[in-house]
Amino acid sequence: MNRLRSGITMSLDGYVAGPEQSVENPLGIGGMRLHEWAFALAAWREQHGLEGGEENASSAFVEESLANVGAVLMGRNMFGGGSGPWGDEPWPGWWGENPPFHVPVFVLTHHARNPLPLEGGTTFTFVTDGIEAALAQAREAAGGKDVVIGGGAEAIRQYLAAGLVDELSISLVPVLLGGGERLLDGLGDAAIALEQVDAIAAPGVTHLRYRIVR
Amino acid sequence: MNRLRSGITMSLDGYVAGPEQSVENPLGIGGMRLHEWAFALAAWREQHGLEGGEENASSAFVEESLANVGAVLMGRNMFGGGSGPWGDEPWPGWWGENPPFHVPVFVLTHHARNPLPLEGGTTFTFVTDGIEAALAQAREAAGGKDVVIGGGAEAIRQYLAAGLVDELSISLVPVLLGGGERLLDGLGDAAIALEQVDAIAAPGVTHLRYRIVR
Repeated sequence: MNRLRSGITMSLDGYVAGPEQSVENPLGIGGMRLHEWAFALAAWREQHGLEGGEENASSAFVEESLANVGAVLMGRNMFGGGSGPWGDEPWPGWWGENPPFHVPVFVLTHHARNPLPLEGGTTFTFVTDGIEAALAQAREAAGGKDVVIGGGAEAIRQYLAAGLVDELSISLVPVLLGGGERLLDGLGDAAIALEQVDAIAAPGVTHLRYRIVR
Repeated sequence: MNRLRSGITMSLDGYVAGPEQSVENPLGIGGMRLHEWAFALAAWREQHGLEGGEENASSAFVEESLANVGAVLMGRNMFGGGSGPWGDEPWPGWWGENPPFHVPVFVLTHHARNPLPLEGGTTFTFVTDGIEAALAQAREAAGGKDVVIGGGAEAIRQYLAAGLVDELSISLVPVLLGGGERLLDGLGDAAIALEQVDAIAAPGVTHLRYRIVR
């Protein structure tokens, strides 16, 4: 069966977003510092329709992360916020007219709405009946390819707690945010064990890959 | 000037000891799981007077950590507990007659007592006038060699917060403890920045090394 994978960037003190997250600043105070390693990369910039950027030891990691992805799962906040200033329907999410996914994306939400097809192969489908139903739809849409949980942290945590994730990568950056949203809180009792697969040191970040065993 | 270094093992969810730490169980529930990577190593076993053990990618890291150490700083709980069942004087600490340090050790405490010389070159000296005074004494005793903060987490955190640490290594293990003592809490506002030096993947652990810039 295709794997369920996820990857996220975390500060050395365990945060995936800084304090005072809001609709205007979803990464919280200081949260942009988490992603500086990625913004500089040609592989990241190309995925987001930008030119230039550099090659370094992160490049192969990013390219591998983006390969063999058949569908994406996403929490509602990562799609584009719960109670923003927009009405529920016309808001197309954070992602613009041509989102960087280029595959079907399934959004976990409590608000039913029609699928939102956009340019470049991304269609957002809104799933209201829980994480397992969303995963089943994503697996179906992915064909034989992997399903990736794009974020946010709460969605990743829910899938981890349910023992449904096969591989987790954490890109650990030497930043102390001092507060915000933690990725791995409340998972100490989850019936999962992690096996370290490898660790890749790159400029300003170490990419840690884990296999998850139920 | 000789460097102030520290190294500690941390769970992927940020804990250096599990929940319910006590005098009888200073590592807390599950805390021994943090150190399994070390117990298996010949380099660790030799330092603790044990035979056998294996060589793997952690060996060079451990040997390097143990090299060029002229003195050790230690919190009172790591020496051997605050309010244990013993009186203040006769208690020789956790460490037995021949502690694994073999250099002068300076213990941060509020209780003055006479120095405690033991076998193998370890003398515990008890310092009651704060972390900077202890560091000055340790630097003097270390000659040109480095000073290492042996732990516990609170001592490391105090020195980090004061901007006195030059190098920090974190041995990150794929364990979720779900609670306990965090190494890096409350440091978000410390006027320090970390630069990643390298990361060494080894069986069951990744050793992350950081240079600290004030």
